[in-house]
Amino acid sequence: MTGSFLDLPQRGGKPRERGLTHVLDRGLSLAQVDGLIEVAGDAVDIVKLGWGTAVVTQNLEAKLARYRDHGIPVVLGGTLTELAIAQERVEGLVAWLRELGIAHVEISDGTIRLPHERKLALIERLAADFTVLSEVGSKDAERIMAPYVWVEQIERELAAGAWKVIAEARESGTAGIYRADGEVRMGLIDEIAHAIPPQRLLFEAPQREQQVWFLRRFGIDVNLGNIAPDDVLSLETLRRGLRSDTADTAMPDAARDAAREERERR
Amino acid sequence: MTGSFLDLPQRGGKPRERGLTHVLDRGLSLAQVDGLIEVAGDAVDIVKLGWGTAVVTQNLEAKLARYRDHGIPVVLGGTLTELAIAQERVEGLVAWLRELGIAHVEISDGTIRLPHERKLALIERLAADFTVLSEVGSKDAERIMAPYVWVEQIERELAAGAWKVIAEARESGTAGIYRADGEVRMGLIDEIAHAIPPQRLLFEAPQREQQVWFLRRFGIDVNLGNIAPDDVLSLETLRRGLRSDTADTAMPDAARDAAREERERR
Amino acid sequence: MTGSFLDLPQRGGKPRERGLTHVLDRGLSLAQVDGLIEVAGDAVDIVKLGWGTAVVTQNLEAKLARYRDHGIPVVLGGTLTELAIAQERVEGLVAWLRELGIAHVEISDGTIRLPHERKLALIERLAADFTVLSEVGSKDAERIMAPYVWVEQIERELAAGAWKVIAEARESGTAGIYRADGEVRMGLIDEIAHAIPPQRLLFEAPQREQQVWFLRRFGIDVNLGNIAPDDVLSLETLRRGLRSDTADTAMPDAARDAAREERERR
Repeated sequence: MTGSFLDLPQRGGKPRERGLTHVLDRGLSLAQVDGLIEVAGDAVDIVKLGWGTAVVTQNLEAKLARYRDHGIPVVLGGTLTELAIAQERVEGLVAWLRELGIAHVEISDGTIRLPHERKLALIERLAADFTVLSEVGSKDAERIMAPYVWVEQIERELAAGAWKVIAEARESGTAGIYRADGEVRMGLIDEIAHAIPPQRLLFEAPQREQQVWFLRRFGIDVNLGNIAPDDVLSLETLRRGLRSDTADTAMPDAARDAAREERERR
Repeated sequence: MTGSFLDLPQRGGKPRERGLTHVLDRGLSLAQVDGLIEVAGDAVDIVKLGWGTAVVTQNLEAKLARYRDHGIPVVLGGTLTELAIAQERVEGLVAWLRELGIAHVEISDGTIRLPHERKLALIERLAADFTVLSEVGSKDAERIMAPYVWVEQIERELAAGAWKVIAEARESGTAGIYRADGEVRMGLIDEIAHAIPPQRLLFEAPQREQQVWFLRRFGIDVNLGNIAPDDVLSLETLRRGLRSDTADTAMPDAARDAAREERERR
Repeated sequence: MTGSFLDLPQRGGKPRERGLTHVLDRGLSLAQVDGLIEVAGDAVDIVKLGWGTAVVTQNLEAKLARYRDHGIPVVLGGTLTELAIAQERVEGLVAWLRELGIAHVEISDGTIRLPHERKLALIERLAADFTVLSEVGSKDAERIMAPYVWVEQIERELAAGAWKVIAEARESGTAGIYRADGEVRMGLIDEIAHAIPPQRLLFEAPQREQQVWFLRRFGIDVNLGNIAPDDVLSLETLRRGLRSDTADTAMPDAARDAAREERERR
C-alpha cells in the first residue's frame, strides 16, 4: 500500500504519449542503468545517449541490450546526426543504427548550419525507417530565433514526420528556450503553445525550477527532456505533488487555496 | 595502520549523540546504498528519504531493509508529513511508518502554514511512538522569521519532545538559515546558539563552504544535515582536518598559527 | 565498427605521455570504480584520491587493488603530503605509500606556506623513489602569484625531478589558474606556455568550458586534471570532436570553416 494513505495526482502508465520523461545518459555504467530502472524505471520513457558519447563509451552494445530488456527506447544525441550530415555520412549513421537495433533518431541543427528545407527532407527520409525526434533551437545562447520562426519550424517538422519536436536547452538548461541564467523565455513558450499542442513538444528542462515552471504551465503530463538520471525520481515527485514546489496540487481545496494565496502574496 | 602516521582530530564512534551526519537520499539504488556504506558507513548517522520520494521510489522495502541491516536509522521527508497534515491523514502516515518499520519521523512546516500550537501538539503526540526530528524555517527564501521567533519555536519544540531540531536550508542550501546565495545568516545562528545547546540542533548544510563555516563556529562535532551521499566522505575529511579548508586544525601549534595568521591576513 | 562511419581526430592509446586525463576520485565505491573502467577505462590515465580522503575511506586497500588490476596508477592528494610536511612526518607518509604499493606522489603547497627551496629538496628526495607530480598555485583564490613566479617555480620543479607539474584549480575550478568565477587567467597561461612545453604540464580543468578552452589552445592532447569520474566520457568526446563545443574539429574543411566563421562572428 505504498503511500496509499494520500490522495495524489495520478499518472498514466507506459507506454505514454504524453507526460514523457526523456532522460539524458551521459555515460552510465550497466550498474547505474540497473539502478535507474530499480528506482524509477516506470518513469523513464526514453533515454538519450548524449551527443557523441555512443561512439566512445566502451559498454555500448551491453548497455543498449540492458535498455532493450527493460523496454526503454534509446536515441543517440543529435550532435552525432549533425556530424554525419556535415561529413555526408547519413547513410553510414543509418546503417550503424540498424546494426545497433536502435529505432529512434534525433535530427537537430543546434551546432551546424543546416538549411531548413534540407532538415525537413532528412526528417521525411528518416521517418520512413525510424521514429524521429527533431530538435529546434541553437546550442549557442547568443543565437536567438524569433518566436514566429520557432513556430514555423516546429509546424513544418511535425508535418514532415517528426514524432515529437524537442525544444533545445543543452545539458545545462542555459540556451534555446532559456536565457543564459536558466530563466524560461516565457513569451517564446507562450507563442509556441498558442500554435502547437504541447503533447507534440518535448521541452528540455534539466533544472528543477524549469521543471516546476513547465508543470505549472502545462500540467502534470507535460513532456520534459534532458532529465539527469539522478533527477528522474525528483521529477516524478514534482509531477505527483510530493515535493514542496508543487505540493499544493496534492492538497485538499482549502489547504490548496491557502497555499496558492501564500505563494501569490510573496 | 590507515594514515596513522598523522595526528588528527579524533571522532567518536556510532551511535553518536553529537557530531551527527544526516544524509539526504534523493533516490539511491541498493548498489548506491551499499557503496555509501562501503566507503563511509561509519560516518552516516541517519538517512532521510527526501520529501515524498518514499512514495514513488520502486525499491522502498528493499532499501529500508538494507539500511536496517547496517543499523542506520531512516526518516522520511518532512514534506510528506506536511501533506499528511494537509489531507488530515496523519494516522495513515503513522500506520504506514509502522508497517515499514520506521522509528523516526520529521515534522516540519516549510511548505504549509501550520499554527505552532498544532505543530507542538503533533510533536508531542508522535514523540510517544517515534523519535521526532522537528524542523524550523521555511523553504521559501523570502519568508523570513525574526531570530527571536526561531529561538522560541526551537525551545518549545524541544520541550514538546523533539530529539533534535533541524534548521532548514533546502537541498540547495539557499533558504532558511542561509541567504538566497547560500551565505550563512550569521546573526541568526548567533542568536540561536546563544539560547540553545548546539548538540540539540541539526544544521542543514549541503554546501562545502557552509559545512566549513559550522565546523569553525561549533567545532568538529557539530550536527550537519542534508549532506549529499557523495559528500559524506568529504565532510568527514573536513571534520578531521584532512581537507585544505580545515587543515590548520590538524597542524602542530607553530604551523597552525602560521596558517591562521595567513588566513586572517587575507 | 563503433561509430567508424565518421572521420574523427584520433587519440593515442595508454600508457600516454601526453593527452593525459587525470581523474579526481573523491570517494568512489568499488562498483563505481568498476563502472568508470567499464565506460571509459581507456581514457583514464591516472587517478587522484582527493586531499586526505585516503585516510578515512573505508575501502582503501580494496580500491587500490582494483585500480592496480586495471593498470591505472593512483596518487594521493597533495593536501595529505602538506599535512605530513607540517607534522614533520614525511617519512611516515613514504612508509605508508610503500605499504600501499603506491608509486606516485603529489607535492603541493596550496594550503601551507612552504619555502620553495624546501619544496625543491622534497621533490628531489621523493623523485628517487616515486614518480612525482608537483603542483604550483594556491587554493586561496585571493593569493595571486605573478606569472614570472609561476614560470620560475615550474621550471625549477621540473629540474628537481617532477614528472609533470600540475597547475592548481581546486575541485571547483575557481582558484590558481582561474578567477573566482572560473574564467581562465589567459595571460598567465600564455606566459607559462611561452616558457614550458605543455606536455610537461597538467592543467586542472574541472569545468566543461575550461576543458574546451585548453583543448582549443593546446590541441586534443593537452593534459587535463581534476576531471570528475562522471565527466571522463564527456571530456573524451570533447577531445574527439563529438560534442557541440569542439565539433568543428571533426568536420570537413568546408563545414569547419563555416562553423569557425560562425563562432567568430558572434
